[in-house]
Amino acid sequence: MTLNNTNITIIRRLLGGKNTRPLRGILSKLSPSDLASLFNHLSGRETNLFVDALIALDNVTTVLLQVPYQKLTPILSSLDKNKLLVILNYSSEDEAAEILSLLHEDYCNELLDLLDPKRSKKLKLILSYPENSAGRIMNTTVFSLPANMKCSEATELLRSYAQEESIYYIYCTSEDANLIGVISLRELVTAPANLKLSDLHSDGIISVGPETKEEEVAQIFEKYNFIAVPVVNEQNKLLGIVTVDEILDVIQDQVTSDIYASAGLQEDDRVYSTATRSIKNRLPWMAFNLILAAYVSSVVSLFEKTMSEVIILATLNNIVAGMGGNTGIQTLTVFTRGIARGDFQFISYSRAVFKEVTVGLINGVVTGVLAAVLVYFWKDSAIVGIIICISMILNSLVATTVGSLVPVLLKKLNFDPAAGSGVIVTMITDSFGFFSFLGIASLGLKHFGHL
Amino acid sequence: MTLNNTNITIIRRLLGGKNTRPLRGILSKLSPSDLASLFNHLSGRETNLFVDALIALDNVTTVLLQVPYQKLTPILSSLDKNKLLVILNYSSEDEAAEILSLLHEDYCNELLDLLDPKRSKKLKLILSYPENSAGRIMNTTVFSLPANMKCSEATELLRSYAQEESIYYIYCTSEDANLIGVISLRELVTAPANLKLSDLHSDGIISVGPETKEEEVAQIFEKYNFIAVPVVNEQNKLLGIVTVDEILDVIQDQVTSDIYASAGLQEDDRVYSTATRSIKNRLPWMAFNLILAAYVSSVVSLFEKTMSEVIILATLNNIVAGMGGNTGIQTLTVFTRGIARGDFQFISYSRAVFKEVTVGLINGVVTGVLAAVLVYFWKDSAIVGIIICISMILNSLVATTVGSLVPVLLKKLNFDPAAGSGVIVTMITDSFGFFSFLGIASLGLKHFGHL
Repeated sequence: MTLNNTNITIIRRLLGGKNTRPLRGILSKLSPSDLASLFNHLSGRETNLFVDALIALDNVTTVLLQVPYQKLTPILSSLDKNKLLVILNYSSEDEAAEILSLLHEDYCNELLDLLDPKRSKKLKLILSYPENSAGRIMNTTVFSLPANMKCSEATELLRSYAQEESIYYIYCTSEDANLIGVISLRELVTAPANLKLSDLHSDGIISVGPETKEEEVAQIFEKYNFIAVPVVNEQNKLLGIVTVDEILDVIQDQVTSDIYASAGLQEDDRVYSTATRSIKNRLPWMAFNLILAAYVSSVVSLFEKTMSEVIILATLNNIVAGMGGNTGIQTLTVFTRGIARGDFQFISYSRAVFKEVTVGLINGVVTGVLAAVLVYFWKDSAIVGIIICISMILNSLVATTVGSLVPVLLKKLNFDPAAGSGVIVTMITDSFGFFSFLGIASLGLKHFGHL
Repeated sequence: MTLNNTNITIIRRLLGGKNTRPLRGILSKLSPSDLASLFNHLSGRETNLFVDALIALDNVTTVLLQVPYQKLTPILSSLDKNKLLVILNYSSEDEAAEILSLLHEDYCNELLDLLDPKRSKKLKLILSYPENSAGRIMNTTVFSLPANMKCSEATELLRSYAQEESIYYIYCTSEDANLIGVISLRELVTAPANLKLSDLHSDGIISVGPETKEEEVAQIFEKYNFIAVPVVNEQNKLLGIVTVDEILDVIQDQVTSDIYASAGLQEDDRVYSTATRSIKNRLPWMAFNLILAAYVSSVVSLFEKTMSEVIILATLNNIVAGMGGNTGIQTLTVFTRGIARGDFQFISYSRAVFKEVTVGLINGVVTGVLAAVLVYFWKDSAIVGIIICISMILNSLVATTVGSLVPVLLKKLNFDPAAGSGVIVTMITDSFGFFSFLGIASLGLKHFGHL
């Protein structure tokens, strides 16, 4: 069943009714993602009743965490305190911490004080880790066993350990609870019963700290094809595991942030953000772009006399600037993706730059000649055609050079090569495009007296 | 150990030596990814010797498949036929098929004929599935058991089934080998010994076909947080499983292709591609952009008379066009990412468009006024300042409108909203920017006789 206007109307009518059976029937047939989007269509009172129904269906946290956090915060704030406590008590620790992190600090602390002290302490620890760190996304329910246990005992324990969470690996710990080895479920199940866990586990376990950034954790998953990675503190004590399903989200967030950075956007600027938030986020970038545009105009301004004598130059200069910009962005995109995906393992920077400049030369010559022919037939001027051709070739060389060098330089200086490169590159190709086209034209005008 | 010039020199010296021990010692300490980049530094003869060493180390396929396919094809072609046959025999079926797909068709068929007929038939089947489909990335070694088997027997079988591949789920099949259920390893291990598999397995299994596109498979993983998904044919016969580690690569490829599409790049245009390939890939796009740029210039051309009377218009018009372009790209980026990530579950298109236009209005007014002040002080003209302000506000409204509508329209027409949107949007903001700025100036000039 999918969500449509008919069943939204039916659900709204059933909410708050005495007979909860038909409501449950419908809700249990919808996916968590559809249930999450239902919040869009409910009033404050209906939201509370809907959350009650989700609590009864035992999937309230799953559904709530499908709602983007900008939309989730007002929903959480509209819930009764007791309902929030129920949710916090029945969620896993990482989920409870995620929900708490969305509430106002005072309210969060108030709720923490009302929870069981032991749980409260654990949640406070999770919340003490930085945002977007392994500590925030780790699952704290880990199946760990002492390394000196026999495989048969371990299998027995596993059987009686009827927990909800999936078990991917069994973590072996020393007497002082330090992580000393990892065994896959398959290894355990296929091992002879008398072997000790310590005979099985592999050395050189790869683990992360609770403060390790999500992105670094994602890189480990991509490199080693893990399903889960253990999180340990400085004393090597096992704190939890990060599972691969969390990492799919991390990668998607990372991608959004890369794409956003190239357009000067903040991560929290989404289609459903408020206009106020988007305006605040985007204005500084637009103001910065205004300064760059003014700088480019100041380059054009140097040639006002030339343009007023040959006005078609003012008509055609955008072609040179625009084509240079496109060339630069193409090179830049190939280079930034190359850096992101580790392509430079297979070619040196210098050879890659040389290749881009070669591509720039050839494509500059071909499009430059096309433009010259166009100008000759359109504006009936062979000499302006030659000038546009030369300046397009020069600008194509500049575009591929800066398009390849800027991200490499930013990377070497430890900046994000995706952020800001585009603006720098197009600012350079714009100003150089105008400068070369109008500059050569000025020289020609001086030399020939006309164009 | 990481790869550096010193150990590259040492490895090259050791290749082909009689004593293979020191070479093995070094190679076994390098990661598959480092070993893959070693190919960069080897001659044809050394490549063959290096592959021999990797075969001896038992990780030749893992290393080879870390090499990007553009670089891998020449490496594979340089290997002796017998060496290729060894590699094809010792790889898993999906890996062997991937290697074969990189060879020339005739050579591929020749090798297939030399393989064991049974294996050859299986590989031919995999190669018959479309590129980038589930059938190409699935693992064909699946642990499946008849549904009427007892749990205790299944556990016993699992123990004796000492295969290399990880087991995530146990697939239950009917007597005619049809997939009828899935059991997690944990469910099996924790179940009472006397239960039959058919008592455990869940109904409503989610599976994909061998021809399902990779991207759709990735969406299933993101939606359901699976570790593996079964691949079945039309008769519901189990063919293999796709595991989550393959999906991380699929997502990264998908992202590259989205980012590339916005810059008019082909997926095979990478930093290590040949210049010839990049030139061929990019020229049509650049020629298309030349046409768009010429069209924009033709708009400017309408106002040559106005510009020649007030030459600072020719200096300033780039500001209006550029700022509109930036605004349009921001809106476009928010919308295309919103479509890609399913954000429109939480807001209707019309409300999101209305919000963007509001943002465009406010930011247009603020930056327009800033530009007016700038022009007033720089070019000493209040009236041109007012004209630039008005045209920037109008262009900001146009930019946010087309920036939000173009991707939605492309999506409704079943085109990729990421591809081409950027060019369409900036073409519109450029031409409308020039048109509004120069058009309003022309009207002013007509009315006042001067500006």
